[in-house]
Amino acid sequence: MPIAPPCPPEWLAGLDALAERAIGLSEPNPRVACRLITRDGRWFEGHTQHAGGPHAEVMALRSAQAAGVSVQGTTAIVTLEPCSHHGRTPPCCDALINAGVGHVIVALQDPNPQVAGRGIARLRDAGIRVDVLDPTHPLALASRALNVGFFSRMERQRPWVRMKLAASLDGATALPNGVSQWITGEAARRDGHAWRHRATAVLTGIGTVRSDDPRLDVRLVPASRQPVRVIVDSRLETPPQARVLQPPGPVWIYTAADAARSAAARAALQAQGAQVIDCPGPPKAAGGSPKVDLAAMMRDLAQREVNELHVEAGHQLNGSLLREGLVDEVLLYLAPRLLGPGAGLAQIGPFEALAQGIALSFIDLTPVGDDVRIRAHVCPRP
Amino acid sequence: MPIAPPCPPEWLAGLDALAERAIGLSEPNPRVACRLITRDGRWFEGHTQHAGGPHAEVMALRSAQAAGVSVQGTTAIVTLEPCSHHGRTPPCCDALINAGVGHVIVALQDPNPQVAGRGIARLRDAGIRVDVLDPTHPLALASRALNVGFFSRMERQRPWVRMKLAASLDGATALPNGVSQWITGEAARRDGHAWRHRATAVLTGIGTVRSDDPRLDVRLVPASRQPVRVIVDSRLETPPQARVLQPPGPVWIYTAADAARSAAARAALQAQGAQVIDCPGPPKAAGGSPKVDLAAMMRDLAQREVNELHVEAGHQLNGSLLREGLVDEVLLYLAPRLLGPGAGLAQIGPFEALAQGIALSFIDLTPVGDDVRIRAHVCPRP
Repeated sequence: MPIAPPCPPEWLAGLDALAERAIGLSEPNPRVACRLITRDGRWFEGHTQHAGGPHAEVMALRSAQAAGVSVQGTTAIVTLEPCSHHGRTPPCCDALINAGVGHVIVALQDPNPQVAGRGIARLRDAGIRVDVLDPTHPLALASRALNVGFFSRMERQRPWVRMKLAASLDGATALPNGVSQWITGEAARRDGHAWRHRATAVLTGIGTVRSDDPRLDVRLVPASRQPVRVIVDSRLETPPQARVLQPPGPVWIYTAADAARSAAARAALQAQGAQVIDCPGPPKAAGGSPKVDLAAMMRDLAQREVNELHVEAGHQLNGSLLREGLVDEVLLYLAPRLLGPGAGLAQIGPFEALAQGIALSFIDLTPVGDDVRIRAHVCPRP
Repeated sequence: MPIAPPCPPEWLAGLDALAERAIGLSEPNPRVACRLITRDGRWFEGHTQHAGGPHAEVMALRSAQAAGVSVQGTTAIVTLEPCSHHGRTPPCCDALINAGVGHVIVALQDPNPQVAGRGIARLRDAGIRVDVLDPTHPLALASRALNVGFFSRMERQRPWVRMKLAASLDGATALPNGVSQWITGEAARRDGHAWRHRATAVLTGIGTVRSDDPRLDVRLVPASRQPVRVIVDSRLETPPQARVLQPPGPVWIYTAADAARSAAARAALQAQGAQVIDCPGPPKAAGGSPKVDLAAMMRDLAQREVNELHVEAGHQLNGSLLREGLVDEVLLYLAPRLLGPGAGLAQIGPFEALAQGIALSFIDLTPVGDDVRIRAHVCPRP
């Protein structure tokens, strides 16, 4: 039975949008909003700042303080359980307790094993009434969706992997001669940059680096920081002059190349500021050169605190990621054009039965300029 | 400057839905609704019945008559200009004039050259005030969209050609081994049958008849009549036992086969109730057998009073129709699945530049069950 929210609905309204303002700011911390409602009905709000900076609760408390308003007995609404541990900042629980807050409404329990209910327990131990929303409440769902990468990293020790694709309505991502710029329109490309900005890191493959030489940074929307760029480059063939190395911020190149034999290439890439990470898969049959172990790479990316990983790769790497079950979401822009034969979305199959295909579940369908954007979750395998 | 509608907006509300009730009924006549609003505010309504039966205006007038209500000085709203000529029924203009209607609001002028403004002129000549809505008024747009096939036949002497497709999200309509049943779910198939029902005729090619042996009738939704089935069969190879010949109603087979040499096949198909129509294209280079002239077939279908033509064909015929510029609308169901290589939507290309593709314009985007439905207009060629 759904639990009635413990406050008037308007107290919760807009907190999802406020938490979204932490996108591109709070990495690798979750995107959280807090609203204080004083006993005489005044509102003070805040959202998570940059990592190491104040969390949402502290921002809201400071806002009240700056107005000279007492928060004794205040109700605090937070979109994620307040932290209880000393991380980069002191625990938010203590800040709420010390401020004399009387009631805390939590939209969602924190999946971080260092928090996971302890924040709520600590508040209750201090005599504060704590209510947690039903997990199906819209604010709980919105908070979970906004922090899908943080939850994935905490619960599965891997990032949330979102594969971005752009194709004609009949599924061509490029003509047979390689021409692909631009199948989709400017509005779709801008929307794609907003999704890049939302991710901790953008991943591509050596094939795309060589054929398209992309920068993979955020240019078409305002960017508060640039995502890490990640290249899957089994034989360490990224040219040191590749454009992907130029924008500010880290570049991580995952490789399976022998360290001694690729020493010169490593030195050249490191001189450009890239970090080369050895991540070879199990040895192949004679003749095949080793490939990056993609599953191990995902675990490593999670350890490097990547929440959402935005993939913009060619159909070969896309196919490998899909076949290995490493993709969580498909973000597909379809252009209003039929192009006939050309490169497909992802190198999978050929299959002999429909059930062998990659099963998805549509979650969103939106016109973007002249194109359409389709979002789908990849169904977990049985 | 948009013209203010000449009546309260609520007088126009719901007339689009009422006119839709003529789908599957009024063929080949347009789908029209009429509402009478008496001087004391009583409403009487009607929509076009079967061809030869009463039109919308007469239905509404009869409804008032049955209630014993005088329509003297009434306002009549009609979604298409009342007819002025003796067709299968007497002119509706005369019915409105004789009934003493005082004011007529017309959503859209009739494109039929036998009407085309003459209905309005005749009403005005009889002293009735007539207002015509601005062509961008939602009711005018809805009436035009509902009668897109009738307008196409009247204005272009060809049907409105809607190509139905079902594919995986990556554009496969079948696996390499031919398996295609069922890529999309039951809700999408039911929706597809509603579009079949809306069409005057359903068209397929001999390839689909031989590989899938479809019935092409309306089964998954209630059907007030079955559409005509049309087969493009250049060499007259339709098997007399094909299921497409079985449902009640006409079957038209367009062929380019030599009459004398195909005499036996003709006789066998005619014995099954099919009509064989000769429609050969210009002679081919030596060795090639003649093909049906698709553009001539469209003109012939319009002369046979086909308004909307629903195409459910394979990628070969789809490609021919698209290449010849004979498709007006794409109705595409995309399933939440990635299938890799397989049959594509339509045999077009290969192209060397994106601008050579078939340009579309998205008009509707709707989830249908687990699938999505995308409707697009084919952009006229420059």
